[in-house]
Amino acid sequence: MSEFDSIVGHFACEVHWGDCDPAGIIFYPTYFRWMDAATWAFMGSVGYGARRMREEHLAMPLVNADCEFLAPAQHGDRCDVRSRIARFGGASFVVAHEVVRADGTTLAKGSEKRVWGRYLNGPGTPLKGQQIPDEVKALFRAK
Amino acid sequence: MSEFDSIVGHFACEVHWGDCDPAGIIFYPTYFRWMDAATWAFMGSVGYGARRMREEHLAMPLVNADCEFLAPAQHGDRCDVRSRIARFGGASFVVAHEVVRADGTTLAKGSEKRVWGRYLNGPGTPLKGQQIPDEVKALFRAK
Amino acid sequence: MSEFDSIVGHFACEVHWGDCDPAGIIFYPTYFRWMDAATWAFMGSVGYGARRMREEHLAMPLVNADCEFLAPAQHGDRCDVRSRIARFGGASFVVAHEVVRADGTTLAKGSEKRVWGRYLNGPGTPLKGQQIPDEVKALFRAK
Amino acid sequence: MSEFDSIVGHFACEVHWGDCDPAGIIFYPTYFRWMDAATWAFMGSVGYGARRMREEHLAMPLVNADCEFLAPAQHGDRCDVRSRIARFGGASFVVAHEVVRADGTTLAKGSEKRVWGRYLNGPGTPLKGQQIPDEVKALFRAK
Repeated sequence: MSEFDSIVGHFACEVHWGDCDPAGIIFYPTYFRWMDAATWAFMGSVGYGARRMREEHLAMPLVNADCEFLAPAQHGDRCDVRSRIARFGGASFVVAHEVVRADGTTLAKGSEKRVWGRYLNGPGTPLKGQQIPDEVKALFRAK
Repeated sequence: MSEFDSIVGHFACEVHWGDCDPAGIIFYPTYFRWMDAATWAFMGSVGYGARRMREEHLAMPLVNADCEFLAPAQHGDRCDVRSRIARFGGASFVVAHEVVRADGTTLAKGSEKRVWGRYLNGPGTPLKGQQIPDEVKALFRAK
Repeated sequence: MSEFDSIVGHFACEVHWGDCDPAGIIFYPTYFRWMDAATWAFMGSVGYGARRMREEHLAMPLVNADCEFLAPAQHGDRCDVRSRIARFGGASFVVAHEVVRADGTTLAKGSEKRVWGRYLNGPGTPLKGQQIPDEVKALFRAK
Repeated sequence: MSEFDSIVGHFACEVHWGDCDPAGIIFYPTYFRWMDAATWAFMGSVGYGARRMREEHLAMPLVNADCEFLAPAQHGDRCDVRSRIARFGGASFVVAHEVVRADGTTLAKGSEKRVWGRYLNGPGTPLKGQQIPDEVKALFRAK
């Protein structure tokens, strides 16, 4: 449980033909692609969308990521990635994700530890970790 | 113009962070991933969804594909892939796609020529082209 | 340390343009794509290549995967993924991977837990975990 | 035939597990990923590698791309992408690619039309087409 638990991001996705492998099930790096997109969508849902992040020279490089695969997903499965902030550190934060299929089955659970980073010299230049502003942290607390 | 022009598929998608390259714009094979998913969605919209295709041992291998890139897309752009049958041959068909951004800008136009194929010995075994049933062709004609 | 430590797989790879994101560094799911390919290459190096796995109806579905990202990789970086068996269970096994750049820098460390699975009814049908044969385990022990 | 035909790029690649789809053959956008990487490798082979391109603020955005798929590729197939300059225009150029499997089978033939572009304000900022320098064109002519 975290004090940020009540703010939940939702990222809708679907298992496409090309996301599956010869075993006929989802190729596992797809879950990490989804988790990445889900984190961006989650930030967007609280006001930090792609455009703003770009304009303010912000990005969120990874420290680590993990995922547990609970049930196989097939072509055509529709899913919802539910994202929560598990923890805010000084310059880093952890996002916890659950991938839930339309029938309610949890397919995967994962997490990403990321840095709140600013480009030193504009987009595409090296990123430096920043103290996460209190205003940002507050966005993930229930009002 | 084709007699199948009035039946249009719609596939909603978005440019994710990982779909872009160091130039900050969409990495072009992403358009082909979208076109593939759009064709499957289009088939699904007329009754040939993933599950049915799988159960009837059908797949749609490619003969060729092309795409023209008209405007750069950026992270966060929301798009609609509009798909139409450009032509039905005996065992093959051509799908024409337009990728249109939410602001109305056409980002790309492409096409795929595919075979209507059946697995000879169940999913994952070699595919053999089949005559496209008239019932399938009829699904793409305006009533 | 594991008794399987002396048998090391090597998978050569390179950071391609499309593997990078707008920050100009590797998009992290790429590491998982590499780890997957590295595991298949590792199995191939001891005699279980793609063709044999296919013919014997074997695949290696995932239980979980994780990765720690230690240094950013850029377009053009050449890497070697070094893989070792960290542990063999009854029907599952853990592969530990290190991604080392040509200049000797370790970029990432990760692991995958997988099941030794057999298709119940031929390729593409559901997979069932199998006891890992002793002959397979022996292939990863130093002679 | 082009006057640039004798300078041929080679890009070695392999069909990985995750490059294939539930039909057990290569997912077609993979060929475009390869063609993109092959073009970068080809440029690198004449002196315009990733680092130099980055330092000189150059990139090669696409105008169009196409590919014909001649034979199905399977997991484990090793390939060589052979690239040639088909044509140099003022600010654009066309690269023709052939994907040849280790057994000599041509799997696919494609082409990409690209712009020789420079970032207006450093990496990641908008790209503007440039006249292709004669020195660059000369690199692709047989000595």
